[in-house]
Amino acid sequence: MPKGINVKKVRIGSVGLGRLGIRHAENIASRVQNAELAALCDLDKQKLDETANRLGVSRRFCSFDEMIDCKDVDAVVLVSPSALHTRQIAAALSAGKHVFSEKPLGVTVSECKEAEKAVEAHPELVFMLGFMRRFDESYKYAHDKAVAGEIGKPILFRSYSQDPEKFIDGAIAFAPHSGGQFLDMAVHDIDLARWFTGSEPESVYAIGGCYAHPEFARYQDGDNVSCLMKFKNDCMVFLFAGRTAPHGYNVETEVIGTKGILRIASVPQKNLVEILDSHGVRRECSENFLERFDTAYVNEVQEFVDCIITGKKPTVTVYDGTRVSEIAYACKSAFEQGSLLKF
Amino acid sequence: MPKGINVKKVRIGSVGLGRLGIRHAENIASRVQNAELAALCDLDKQKLDETANRLGVSRRFCSFDEMIDCKDVDAVVLVSPSALHTRQIAAALSAGKHVFSEKPLGVTVSECKEAEKAVEAHPELVFMLGFMRRFDESYKYAHDKAVAGEIGKPILFRSYSQDPEKFIDGAIAFAPHSGGQFLDMAVHDIDLARWFTGSEPESVYAIGGCYAHPEFARYQDGDNVSCLMKFKNDCMVFLFAGRTAPHGYNVETEVIGTKGILRIASVPQKNLVEILDSHGVRRECSENFLERFDTAYVNEVQEFVDCIITGKKPTVTVYDGTRVSEIAYACKSAFEQGSLLKF
Amino acid sequence: MPKGINVKKVRIGSVGLGRLGIRHAENIASRVQNAELAALCDLDKQKLDETANRLGVSRRFCSFDEMIDCKDVDAVVLVSPSALHTRQIAAALSAGKHVFSEKPLGVTVSECKEAEKAVEAHPELVFMLGFMRRFDESYKYAHDKAVAGEIGKPILFRSYSQDPEKFIDGAIAFAPHSGGQFLDMAVHDIDLARWFTGSEPESVYAIGGCYAHPEFARYQDGDNVSCLMKFKNDCMVFLFAGRTAPHGYNVETEVIGTKGILRIASVPQKNLVEILDSHGVRRECSENFLERFDTAYVNEVQEFVDCIITGKKPTVTVYDGTRVSEIAYACKSAFEQGSLLKF
Amino acid sequence: MPKGINVKKVRIGSVGLGRLGIRHAENIASRVQNAELAALCDLDKQKLDETANRLGVSRRFCSFDEMIDCKDVDAVVLVSPSALHTRQIAAALSAGKHVFSEKPLGVTVSECKEAEKAVEAHPELVFMLGFMRRFDESYKYAHDKAVAGEIGKPILFRSYSQDPEKFIDGAIAFAPHSGGQFLDMAVHDIDLARWFTGSEPESVYAIGGCYAHPEFARYQDGDNVSCLMKFKNDCMVFLFAGRTAPHGYNVETEVIGTKGILRIASVPQKNLVEILDSHGVRRECSENFLERFDTAYVNEVQEFVDCIITGKKPTVTVYDGTRVSEIAYACKSAFEQGSLLKF
Repeated sequence: MPKGINVKKVRIGSVGLGRLGIRHAENIASRVQNAELAALCDLDKQKLDETANRLGVSRRFCSFDEMIDCKDVDAVVLVSPSALHTRQIAAALSAGKHVFSEKPLGVTVSECKEAEKAVEAHPELVFMLGFMRRFDESYKYAHDKAVAGEIGKPILFRSYSQDPEKFIDGAIAFAPHSGGQFLDMAVHDIDLARWFTGSEPESVYAIGGCYAHPEFARYQDGDNVSCLMKFKNDCMVFLFAGRTAPHGYNVETEVIGTKGILRIASVPQKNLVEILDSHGVRRECSENFLERFDTAYVNEVQEFVDCIITGKKPTVTVYDGTRVSEIAYACKSAFEQGSLLKF
Repeated sequence: MPKGINVKKVRIGSVGLGRLGIRHAENIASRVQNAELAALCDLDKQKLDETANRLGVSRRFCSFDEMIDCKDVDAVVLVSPSALHTRQIAAALSAGKHVFSEKPLGVTVSECKEAEKAVEAHPELVFMLGFMRRFDESYKYAHDKAVAGEIGKPILFRSYSQDPEKFIDGAIAFAPHSGGQFLDMAVHDIDLARWFTGSEPESVYAIGGCYAHPEFARYQDGDNVSCLMKFKNDCMVFLFAGRTAPHGYNVETEVIGTKGILRIASVPQKNLVEILDSHGVRRECSENFLERFDTAYVNEVQEFVDCIITGKKPTVTVYDGTRVSEIAYACKSAFEQGSLLKF
Repeated sequence: MPKGINVKKVRIGSVGLGRLGIRHAENIASRVQNAELAALCDLDKQKLDETANRLGVSRRFCSFDEMIDCKDVDAVVLVSPSALHTRQIAAALSAGKHVFSEKPLGVTVSECKEAEKAVEAHPELVFMLGFMRRFDESYKYAHDKAVAGEIGKPILFRSYSQDPEKFIDGAIAFAPHSGGQFLDMAVHDIDLARWFTGSEPESVYAIGGCYAHPEFARYQDGDNVSCLMKFKNDCMVFLFAGRTAPHGYNVETEVIGTKGILRIASVPQKNLVEILDSHGVRRECSENFLERFDTAYVNEVQEFVDCIITGKKPTVTVYDGTRVSEIAYACKSAFEQGSLLKF
Repeated sequence: MPKGINVKKVRIGSVGLGRLGIRHAENIASRVQNAELAALCDLDKQKLDETANRLGVSRRFCSFDEMIDCKDVDAVVLVSPSALHTRQIAAALSAGKHVFSEKPLGVTVSECKEAEKAVEAHPELVFMLGFMRRFDESYKYAHDKAVAGEIGKPILFRSYSQDPEKFIDGAIAFAPHSGGQFLDMAVHDIDLARWFTGSEPESVYAIGGCYAHPEFARYQDGDNVSCLMKFKNDCMVFLFAGRTAPHGYNVETEVIGTKGILRIASVPQKNLVEILDSHGVRRECSENFLERFDTAYVNEVQEFVDCIITGKKPTVTVYDGTRVSEIAYACKSAFEQGSLLKF
């Protein structure tokens, strides 16, 4: 995509001003090419005004429906609560807006199917789902190598998503609404597994528990869970999701192939600084997803904007969203029943 | 154990002169304290003489039974074919010899039970099984930390055993007799899992396949396999065993706890040399088990000798051998049936 | 600096369209906040038009003097040949433009002094010199720790600048004009040494040679050189600059203090991908300065723009430019004479 | 060297029971092949008896001269105070004993020359000096690669020797007798530089100071020092020696060549365990020279014994000892005078 060329900027209305929502708004305002932060929407009037003032945005909405009526908005970026996604996707598309939605597509598989229908009804509009890891430089680099055949046939795909223990209070508070670890955290790993292997699961066994925080048991969830899946191309897929990482935010992935092995972020280093002191030789770690995936969050919205301008199709489709949800629900069931599930 | 003190040396007869057998013989001859390589036994007369000449051993036997009749042998080290282990253990104990046996204890669980009985019948003799990883400095160091509570409660235990692709011909030739990947390779990881967690499996799901070498399918085996187990203390255990590692001999283990994480040999580096050249910044890898566990093979026999001299009990017991075999057989069944197995 | 706030954008004219010049132009067009790429200047009409078309810039100049007459330009970014810097700095300041200049300030110390006078004559204008490493996230992070006292008193500062062998043809072609390794490459390390130690050199000894490429000898230069300096605060400073790195672009720095040691980029890894293959366990390296310091080049111009808007003073001053040049010339003399030089 | 073959064992008398002396005695007693710890010598009668009892040695001497009269001793290993080395080397050779001496050969260059004469007078006896790093597996591996031409022509040789801060009290107490950092610590790096480059220094500049411990200034020494040398083959050699390492015992070496770069122990890791906890991702470090060079200390005495048995010549000669001392003295002079010294 040419940078700064004289194209008409895509005017984006961003919805939801939680931590990630604010970050998306800032990125659109200043780091995404050919985009303009045209409007903001949040129920919290004070936060809305603060953010809009800071980012120089005049169009401000407490009502999503009013925002999508606004003719000066070409596209929406949804960072609203998960339960609203499906309805907002459908409404925005109906109003003629391009839609970028953060995961999940819907909180149930049937919601995902509804979203599919809405998207299919508007082939003229761009719809994209936010699996940001695909837009991280290191993941892209590794994926390119895998696709180029440099590691041969995939044997084992292993991926971890670990949130730091220090955010546990927030995780416990959010537990009733999170859908559990597989839906809340492992969806990104599920997406990566499908992306790297080009295949789909056949069976899944899932286990885990409350190792440090019994509070999650109330919701039939654990603070750490894992699953082993066999994919149709025979690839073994092992996923681990946890909330008690002692060292920081740890997202790491390994793909073992017949000819080579790739590891992405096996040391979740914050930067290129190495410290030698009384603790040994050490690297400090990323603290959270916003730090680790800073650039990826810009890149994914850039892809969305580029698709709108050039007419190309996003690489992440609505069907990826449904498929990932179906798989995450299967993992969740396997975990709750302690049984092996076939797809 | 005091070094070089005026103790009577333990006179060891070493049985089997394959690669590991020769190494054990060399170690006993020159690296194990308070031990004497008193006799050698192998069916191959030429190899026997060559090795015995080289190591200065006068007592040479093609018959195991003759060797255990020799009154100048106090103890035997068994590095013979697996199928002979149980019988040789029993015979040697009956002949009043201390016994160190390489894994496995027996090729079936019922053989293991027989071995148990033989050992129980001779409480005055030392019996020890060769799980050498427990005697590797890095594994010991990590285990000490885990036992000291430094990583809290164990959440996930992950362990890999990967043989290099370049030894695949030997692996294929041995496939009819190996018992499969779980019995041949993963037993070490199973032993480590029990050692680190202090617990036992409740359930196992196992998968895998022939990703590069269809020859293994003939024996209902794969060239790469994995399993996910839930242990009674809730710890998740993920094991992976493969024969196609592109980079070298890779044995690595990770223990994720509630307070810290330990990784042993996550980079299977050969030594402390780092090379910067057109391939990037790199470390060369261990080539095989003899290189990687060089010192561990000495240490385990040292432990055996120390137990004989001081009367202390080996930390690895005959029951560990049975238990590991039972678990490996369960993994094998789960793999062959594609089903979830409860213990 | 608030992002995207309703401030008047700084209109920048960028001068020079070599590789770094094009990058700066692209950054100003699309990655620097509150900035507008208002004009471009280069002698090469075709390259000028191509770049201006691509970046949507209408004001195009083959003459620097015409560009600084343009009232729609608030500031200039100089990425022109080094020999033009001093004159262009003075002329732009006289024309009332803020000036950001890539290093060096001038090609001789007396030119640097002239530049100082020009800057002193225009205290109302922002002048900043491009020592981009100070704006790299890892260097900033390490510097913050050093300033906070986390490593105690500095003992040894070691810094390497290595260009890849694969760019050697360009380096040889540029050799007559480069001023030699100390002026061309080590200036960045000299700047870092002063920045990290807060001190100045007292003495320098410099050596080196043509290890692979005799062509540099013609210019009393080497393809690899080094120097050892004692700084006034007693810190030892060892710098190494080379053009034959086999592995990629390698800029690394170590600061050994009495309480801790910091290493920045001791493995010049391209990204977070680790590869395990027949070469061992490896990380691929940064290829060139544009890749390694991608973000730093944005950050330094952002700092310049922020200073213009807010009135704060740049942390890199004209005097830093002079001082670094003086030191680099001393290193060059020490190298050419093979002697110890006192400052 | 065949292991355990029926060769007559070399009967060694070990002299000096400091920390390293005790370690050598233990190694000879139990880890060196074809060697027997035949006698021990130390002025401290109690320590002598304790060690001899523990290691099962009956011949015990408080007098060195009595020990070398003993006909049951074939060779001596000198781990006595440095000031005694020259005299003991000469006396032992005169008495017909093979001699292995820890560094230094003598405390002055003229002592070294005397030692040379003594060695030259006894070509029938083996003399070897203890530069143990050459016998470390990683150093040997890297040296083999360098000699094989894998890194091309050497450009920069950099080597660090850092003792941990926690041993500073001992270092201060020993300061009056140490000869200073270059003679006490950097000699090993000087030896490595000559070994890796196959060349000799032409010039040296040395600096340093008391960064944390003013006590060293009394002896015209520093707690951290460095030097930059130009070697006759143009290789640049930078050495750093320090006593205040915050992280452990750090001996690291880098050889930058025209085709590749080798780094030995750039992370001074204790073992293969990696820890992920609140300090980040870290490796604990070697604590002292006995831990880091455990095997090298065995290997060097093994080489000595092998030379005695097979008649081959040691790779480390008496002239290496003299040369290293000459260079270390030159470094010391350069440091004391703050001047550049030509050889």
